Amino acid sequence: MPFTPAVREQRFVLDTVAGVPELARSERFAAASDDVVDAVLEGVGQFAIGEWAPLNRAGDTVGAKWSPEGVHMPDGYRAAYQAYVEGGWGTIGVAEEWGGQGLPFAIQSAVLETLGSANMGFALCPTLTVGAIEALAHHGSPEQQATYLPKLATGEWTGTMNLTEPQAGSDVGALRTMATPLGDGRWSIKGTKIYISFGDHDMADNIVHLVLARTPDAPKGTRGISLFLVPKIREDGTRNDVRVVSIEHKMGLHASPTCVLSFGDNDDCTGELIGPEYGGIRAMFTMMNNARLNVGLQGVQVAEAATQAAVAYALDRVQGARADGPARIVEHPDVRRMLLRMKAQTQAARALVYYAAGQVDRATLGDRDANLRVEMVTPLAKAHATDLGNEVASLGIQVHGGMGYVEETGAAQFFRDARITPIYEGTNGIQAADLVGRKLALDNGGGFARLIADMAAEAEHADLKSLIEACDALGRTLQTSDADDKLAASYPFLTMLSVATCGWLLERQSRMVEGDDSFAQMKRASVAFYLDQIVPEALGLCAAATAPASQLYAVPAEAFAA
Amino acid sequence: MPFTPAVREQRFVLDTVAGVPELARSERFAAASDDVVDAVLEGVGQFAIGEWAPLNRAGDTVGAKWSPEGVHMPDGYRAAYQAYVEGGWGTIGVAEEWGGQGLPFAIQSAVLETLGSANMGFALCPTLTVGAIEALAHHGSPEQQATYLPKLATGEWTGTMNLTEPQAGSDVGALRTMATPLGDGRWSIKGTKIYISFGDHDMADNIVHLVLARTPDAPKGTRGISLFLVPKIREDGTRNDVRVVSIEHKMGLHASPTCVLSFGDNDDCTGELIGPEYGGIRAMFTMMNNARLNVGLQGVQVAEAATQAAVAYALDRVQGARADGPARIVEHPDVRRMLLRMKAQTQAARALVYYAAGQVDRATLGDRDANLRVEMVTPLAKAHATDLGNEVASLGIQVHGGMGYVEETGAAQFFRDARITPIYEGTNGIQAADLVGRKLALDNGGGFARLIADMAAEAEHADLKSLIEACDALGRTLQTSDADDKLAASYPFLTMLSVATCGWLLERQSRMVEGDDSFAQMKRASVAFYLDQIVPEALGLCAAATAPASQLYAVPAEAFAA
Repeated sequence: MPFTPAVREQRFVLDTVAGVPELARSERFAAASDDVVDAVLEGVGQFAIGEWAPLNRAGDTVGAKWSPEGVHMPDGYRAAYQAYVEGGWGTIGVAEEWGGQGLPFAIQSAVLETLGSANMGFALCPTLTVGAIEALAHHGSPEQQATYLPKLATGEWTGTMNLTEPQAGSDVGALRTMATPLGDGRWSIKGTKIYISFGDHDMADNIVHLVLARTPDAPKGTRGISLFLVPKIREDGTRNDVRVVSIEHKMGLHASPTCVLSFGDNDDCTGELIGPEYGGIRAMFTMMNNARLNVGLQGVQVAEAATQAAVAYALDRVQGARADGPARIVEHPDVRRMLLRMKAQTQAARALVYYAAGQVDRATLGDRDANLRVEMVTPLAKAHATDLGNEVASLGIQVHGGMGYVEETGAAQFFRDARITPIYEGTNGIQAADLVGRKLALDNGGGFARLIADMAAEAEHADLKSLIEACDALGRTLQTSDADDKLAASYPFLTMLSVATCGWLLERQSRMVEGDDSFAQMKRASVAFYLDQIVPEALGLCAAATAPASQLYAVPAEAFAA
Repeated sequence: MPFTPAVREQRFVLDTVAGVPELARSERFAAASDDVVDAVLEGVGQFAIGEWAPLNRAGDTVGAKWSPEGVHMPDGYRAAYQAYVEGGWGTIGVAEEWGGQGLPFAIQSAVLETLGSANMGFALCPTLTVGAIEALAHHGSPEQQATYLPKLATGEWTGTMNLTEPQAGSDVGALRTMATPLGDGRWSIKGTKIYISFGDHDMADNIVHLVLARTPDAPKGTRGISLFLVPKIREDGTRNDVRVVSIEHKMGLHASPTCVLSFGDNDDCTGELIGPEYGGIRAMFTMMNNARLNVGLQGVQVAEAATQAAVAYALDRVQGARADGPARIVEHPDVRRMLLRMKAQTQAARALVYYAAGQVDRATLGDRDANLRVEMVTPLAKAHATDLGNEVASLGIQVHGGMGYVEETGAAQFFRDARITPIYEGTNGIQAADLVGRKLALDNGGGFARLIADMAAEAEHADLKSLIEACDALGRTLQTSDADDKLAASYPFLTMLSVATCGWLLERQSRMVEGDDSFAQMKRASVAFYLDQIVPEALGLCAAATAPASQLYAVPAEAFAA
């Protein structure tokens, strides 16, 4: 099934939801002219079709392989990665001072979307590099920036995020990796990290590991964590003492090696401190917020790819009859319902993630309210867009019928690949906790109130108005609730608020789309479906979003095993 | 993670929902005394723990293997299957006249549930044999019954269902396999069938293929289909001309070989007609109805297994803190919410499937309304219980966090195994079409009206009453609607009606459970969660269940590719 980049839709959503034309009026984003945006979207589309999409299946069936010397990628990956570097696709969103093209983060998101729709596992590699660039750009010293940023920008070197340890997952404060000063400004790093995506590979000349660790006498918990930069190859050309112990045997995303990394087995692992000592958690959040949006973007990637595959199958497969004879399955009502749902949910996920990206760009321009809004919508974009990626991938299997369960069609790969996204970079439950625990209260609830007011001002659909009102009422209640009641309601509340936000952004698109070509017709149809069917579904979550925690704790934990 | 048969819950639901004590008062089911039922549930539990559960992982990682000689099961499967035969577990639900124990179908369902929770792929083999037994018991000649039923009852021989062909999936009437009379009462069979579960294996001495085929001059479509019995080994001991061409490379259920079978490559495939010529579709429905309930039961199997694994993990894994120090993740509200949802949805699925099974048994006793009710609830049990199996398996991964995506925990296997169940034995979309297209109108709508009246009489929970009323209104509308409008609304309507039915059966359980031990506490807590949170969610589907088909056809099919 050939992959077709969703260029028209991307451009439309960049314009109407991310506000790229406005951004382009600023000096910082002046490069984002109409022509350039079109050229970038078209160009990366052709690149993805030609270079990355053809490797997607081998990424799954062969996968990354571990050996004592390191991780080997399947045939063709190194060359395709080098073509990505040479094409300059890594530099899109990087500031010009670091050798980048200075385009908005929203454009970079569209580029990553296309790469990931073509090959989701592969695209995780540049996604992580983006996180490392952000961390260094915000917290690195001028020397560190000069040394690392240009190479990371092009992708000649790739980046990793090293947070998790066996006993420290969602509770990152429990980590034990140690950093001890060597007296010359460098630090000796010792410890084991798990779940390190692209922690090793053979596609680039160097890998820049960003590692959370504790320093001697550091306070307990997250307050005592610092961030270190640990290159695979040191500046003097020697190999650092970082070893890839194994890679995980995962359900999907086989092109992405998930590594166990051991730092300092031979007491010769050196690194440099990024930002101040104990500044690790702050730097981590810089890296993570970005990464969280990019994981939400993976939901868009897989939803787009799964939808295209299902549509192609449904337009081709003849089965059963309709009034006028044998019918392609796209003509059967329940198949049509699934396809329309896939289209609508994919567009919803894209709207949410591009909106967040556009707010990141406004924040870059100094807009304080946009900054608040990034904070507010990041958990929505990460959690809800990945939930949608999973739902759409599952519908994609269903449209294929028995063929969907057979690996050869690729529908199953989307389903398996997608399932990690609600877990990593903070589980979706953690996102919901972040939303009700920290984000609702930002600016004394002002961020939330303004978001709701903006939505309400534009909402013109009856059920969307009801949903926005419900979210408003719930959000205000949750701000003052008992901590456990908040958390008990957090997931259904996050879903309701996400659907309201998507409905708002889609309704706007439906009003702004012009003409009557296939794109415009499909946009109106999918938005109507979203507002008429998916928004009312979300209203059904009201009961769950108002239920007290006591309902969850009515029985002792051990009774669950009864 | 050790598997624990859900004996207490099974017994409780058999008593309160399937009505086994009442059934045992009949002559036909007199064997189902309290002691016997307890002994069966306990006995199969111990058998499943000892013999089948230990093979589950190898079923996934090694899987069934094809060779030119046939399909080889992983080490240990043949012996474990023979132990199943010797233990008499196949004979539970078979009538005494065929060498069975004459116990209710509901008890047999509980037995299959336990076997499938221990090893879902393995349990599919006896599940298919049950379908073959039903077809022969209802449509076979006395000679055929005498020859085949005793061996199928014990499981010495296994059964298969051969419906699908490459061009004939959901549209079974499009099949092309030919049966030509040989003049001596036997028929020559020629054709290719796909997706034949356990179409070949090396665990039993013979395999009895039930094959749908067309006879010369047969009318087109489903009216011209006949059912044939094609043994792998003929009565004279010679091997029949049935060849396993290949097995599918599936996402899950690797212990179950999904075969492409070629009949009559050498023009030497012989079979016998079951029932009258052109009686194939009727016999198929006998086989399928049973099989559909048993696929619904697979939803229960995987939900139970996934829940047990997630509970065990959550009771063990320490991460983060609560007020009184480090906490097991079961103490975190959103994890607790997921686990309670898993418990509630598993109990809902079991209630639905056991209820249907109990109605099968009443129908066997001659209750005509029960017969109608089996027809009504079969699509609900098949579709909704499998949807729940998938939802619960996905939550199981989420509770495990990153460990859930790594294959070693087994959470991923449940998720992969479960995904076929909404597809085979008639996709869930086909079930929804069957519900609104045929089942609602049965007995001029009387079957539906009486089901709703029964629910309404017992419903005591505000939102459950609302849901039942909504289903009643929708169901009456759908009976007279335009065919496409019916189909457009069918899936959300099926879900609403299923949730109403589950809510009704669970509320009854909550009222009937006695005492205050862990089981009773958990039952009340999960039912409260179901009624307070899951029932209101289903009410959110009202808009979708009343939307006209025109919303789905607002754009031409090709616009989906735009």
